[in-house]
Amino acid sequence: KTQKSSTYMAKSRFEYVKEFEQSDELLKNCWIVVRIDGRGFTKFTEEHQFEKPNDERALRLMNHAAAEVMKDCADMVLSYGQSDEYSFVLKRDADLYKRRASKISTYVASLFTAHYVFSWADFFPDKKLQRPPSFDGRCICYPTDENVKDYLRWRYVDCHINNLYNTCFWKLVLEKKYSKQQAQTELAKTNSEQKNELLYNDFNMNYNDCKEIFKKGSTQIWVHRADASSTVLTGPARAGKAKRTLEVMYVDLCKEQFWGDYPGIIPTAK
Amino acid sequence: KTQKSSTYMAKSRFEYVKEFEQSDELLKNCWIVVRIDGRGFTKFTEEHQFEKPNDERALRLMNHAAAEVMKDCADMVLSYGQSDEYSFVLKRDADLYKRRASKISTYVASLFTAHYVFSWADFFPDKKLQRPPSFDGRCICYPTDENVKDYLRWRYVDCHINNLYNTCFWKLVLEKKYSKQQAQTELAKTNSEQKNELLYNDFNMNYNDCKEIFKKGSTQIWVHRADASSTVLTGPARAGKAKRTLEVMYVDLCKEQFWGDYPGIIPTAK
Amino acid sequence: KTQKSSTYMAKSRFEYVKEFEQSDELLKNCWIVVRIDGRGFTKFTEEHQFEKPNDERALRLMNHAAAEVMKDCADMVLSYGQSDEYSFVLKRDADLYKRRASKISTYVASLFTAHYVFSWADFFPDKKLQRPPSFDGRCICYPTDENVKDYLRWRYVDCHINNLYNTCFWKLVLEKKYSKQQAQTELAKTNSEQKNELLYNDFNMNYNDCKEIFKKGSTQIWVHRADASSTVLTGPARAGKAKRTLEVMYVDLCKEQFWGDYPGIIPTAK
Amino acid sequence: KTQKSSTYMAKSRFEYVKEFEQSDELLKNCWIVVRIDGRGFTKFTEEHQFEKPNDERALRLMNHAAAEVMKDCADMVLSYGQSDEYSFVLKRDADLYKRRASKISTYVASLFTAHYVFSWADFFPDKKLQRPPSFDGRCICYPTDENVKDYLRWRYVDCHINNLYNTCFWKLVLEKKYSKQQAQTELAKTNSEQKNELLYNDFNMNYNDCKEIFKKGSTQIWVHRADASSTVLTGPARAGKAKRTLEVMYVDLCKEQFWGDYPGIIPTAK
Repeated sequence: KTQKSSTYMAKSRFEYVKEFEQSDELLKNCWIVVRIDGRGFTKFTEEHQFEKPNDERALRLMNHAAAEVMKDCADMVLSYGQSDEYSFVLKRDADLYKRRASKISTYVASLFTAHYVFSWADFFPDKKLQRPPSFDGRCICYPTDENVKDYLRWRYVDCHINNLYNTCFWKLVLEKKYSKQQAQTELAKTNSEQKNELLYNDFNMNYNDCKEIFKKGSTQIWVHRADASSTVLTGPARAGKAKRTLEVMYVDLCKEQFWGDYPGIIPTAK
Repeated sequence: KTQKSSTYMAKSRFEYVKEFEQSDELLKNCWIVVRIDGRGFTKFTEEHQFEKPNDERALRLMNHAAAEVMKDCADMVLSYGQSDEYSFVLKRDADLYKRRASKISTYVASLFTAHYVFSWADFFPDKKLQRPPSFDGRCICYPTDENVKDYLRWRYVDCHINNLYNTCFWKLVLEKKYSKQQAQTELAKTNSEQKNELLYNDFNMNYNDCKEIFKKGSTQIWVHRADASSTVLTGPARAGKAKRTLEVMYVDLCKEQFWGDYPGIIPTAK
Repeated sequence: KTQKSSTYMAKSRFEYVKEFEQSDELLKNCWIVVRIDGRGFTKFTEEHQFEKPNDERALRLMNHAAAEVMKDCADMVLSYGQSDEYSFVLKRDADLYKRRASKISTYVASLFTAHYVFSWADFFPDKKLQRPPSFDGRCICYPTDENVKDYLRWRYVDCHINNLYNTCFWKLVLEKKYSKQQAQTELAKTNSEQKNELLYNDFNMNYNDCKEIFKKGSTQIWVHRADASSTVLTGPARAGKAKRTLEVMYVDLCKEQFWGDYPGIIPTAK
Repeated sequence: KTQKSSTYMAKSRFEYVKEFEQSDELLKNCWIVVRIDGRGFTKFTEEHQFEKPNDERALRLMNHAAAEVMKDCADMVLSYGQSDEYSFVLKRDADLYKRRASKISTYVASLFTAHYVFSWADFFPDKKLQRPPSFDGRCICYPTDENVKDYLRWRYVDCHINNLYNTCFWKLVLEKKYSKQQAQTELAKTNSEQKNELLYNDFNMNYNDCKEIFKKGSTQIWVHRADASSTVLTGPARAGKAKRTLEVMYVDLCKEQFWGDYPGIIPTAK
């Protein structure tokens, strides 16, 4: 508030209504995931002529907005985005807003939206934002490290499956001039292998050649790297100088390698 | 999502993580209030040199963003804003997002924020937005009509008290060159009457001459008015022609007159 | 606790686990209904050879246990029982256990069970309790007076429908020697009217002659009656002498008469 | 229910009230602890002249009631009781009542109470139950194995501290004829060591000679033991013959030994 009296005193007989607000504290010592989803993005992407099946600039704008959220919130250890959704992982002992679910989820949804709109022109200098998009969200608690990793693997697999599907779908629609309905019917009968073959045989495209950001989604974590400009320093004296930077990666969250490379993110429970 | 397979099938062994999402459905047949609050607005208003004690353009931007939310959501019957907060009242039988608290509150916070940022330049053509603001929010249920009216009266009285305080505070700081600490100490000993006298005696100002939007906050409701251009039509044939428009009013929510003038908004329980 | 140190002090480094207990406060100013249901009563009634379709002594034992709960809890204004279930209505402003759902529901379930077991022999002097029955329960909030009345009407109609069905069912099984499966199949095709005719034509029984406690369930409320021994007193002077007694009634909760006769129980909202 | 129509059909226009029941599912993959506490047991123990500071028969009746609960519920892996409280630990993947908090807590509170009242005479053949006691309860979730062990350690330490205090308190009251107030004042200034010395110096009592059930509380777990009557069998062939029995132990839950001896109860998270 702009300015308020410092000592508290009941201001009116109506203050009793404050007591109707119910507690929604999330269980302690659980990982908290906040996932936000674009509202009505099918229409939004059409209105703004997003490239199909993926618009890289739009994904980079999503990554930018997510990065701003992570920089604002010390409790976040990882975020993962694909399509019009983004997931944020808060560490077990996060005390943000005293773990109140509604506060945490509105904070993330609002701040993400704010940066998406604010920075639109940086990513789409040639394209005017017709109307502002919005995102809904929710908090989910995960009691174990495996559970929260499985959450991320779930979103990762979802990204892969959707991207393979969408790549085929838009090839059929844009190059073979199928109607959307026809493309859908055609793909309904195919499994992953057949979709790969469809791309290869009919469109001379190797799915693996898709951009990593499309195939794998974007993972953002804080990485501690030695400062390149001070390479002379070594040993313990270096420790305090390690610079923490937020990095976007396109990695396979289902492979153990990622978790092994960054063991500090979601440590194994003792 | 941009495009998804239409028939559902488990996509991976990780889908079990979906079951960790817990229900947060709000009690049926209660009024739902969503209130959002600006985060860190003391600093935000300083960075953007808002006028003190009130910046009318900023309030009108708030009203604009709230109006866009109300136009988007058929379940909203009234909204009330003051300072950096806005409350939205959803009718008892609202089924928005199946009454899921997190979805409703993030939707409102995100859409409001989106319009605030998107329309900033329309209200501040001469002032660049330095960084995007954000809002947190929560849902509160009220079982009776009196309870939800008391909620609005509570916010109304809060607006009045804060505005009177802030008006005095900034007079002392801006005109008498008090430090903020001095002004606060000075005002701590005063009641409402004394504050009115302070304004009158020391600053030759009648508090009642303050702008209505400052003193009373902004109330927005849907008003059904006959279309001026079709006054020849009368009787039942007119009914369908009544135009519903969203109007901003600066009214005393503690007086019965407002509720009497618009009995359809929060009807008396049978 | 039998005896504890009066001043609080952290007793161990394990006390942090207390903070995992999550709030489950019920929304203020709502009617609270606690309904308990017998667990495994089909088997329990067989083990104790309850009379079919209704065992009046068992119902009276249920009423007794419910009465003891009502006498223990000042916030209860009405209870209604049928078959192996009992519902308790707590007034809007009840502050029992600070409205904590788990505390309220366990208190009712436990105290009811305690009296059921404790008083078994008073109602079944000739029948040994083989094993103790148990009840589960839950709290439900109702925001309006009509909602909570509709709740009671719902249970009342349920009682009527079940009793009509069960009366027919056991007539077929006990007197016509149908198997339970045959009886069920036979009744599946009938509506209420046909069930009444079945009783009348095949068993020479008028359903209306069933005992009221079977047809209508048991309603318990506090009734203020003038003390018979002081009939000379009249007018206002009498008021303070009116004796409050808990009475069991077998009344039609769907008829307005009951609510009109006892307007103070669930008053119309203002 | 005694007997109900098998096919579902809306029975009345009042059924909408069912939708007011709100979900209270406990977070998946967490340990669930249900703790019940005696209501008004200070008075209850006086009315029934329980021995001070501990009444062994009363504790054994508590243990009996808890054992019956554990035998009834396959999801329980451990229970711990002291004074007038009992805690039950349900395993992480328990699906009892679909993890609905109110159902689980009322079930435990009701069944425990039922057995307490039902079996009173077996433990107090010479003492009539004057009125039935009752218990309230609640569910608490613990995400990690350490958290739930710390819960049990917390209750264990509480038992120890209370028992040492109560032992001193009742020595002062019963043997030195202090008033309760005097005893409380006297003990308020003492720490654990001083309480031990008080017992030794003034009452010639070594606290360690207290019965284990008093000092340590009662822990109940399922133990798999070879059947004594078939000792000839050894090796894998024995496995299937191991008999699972519920055993009461008086053990130090803060020592690692217990958890090491029974590693299967609360296994270390992977």
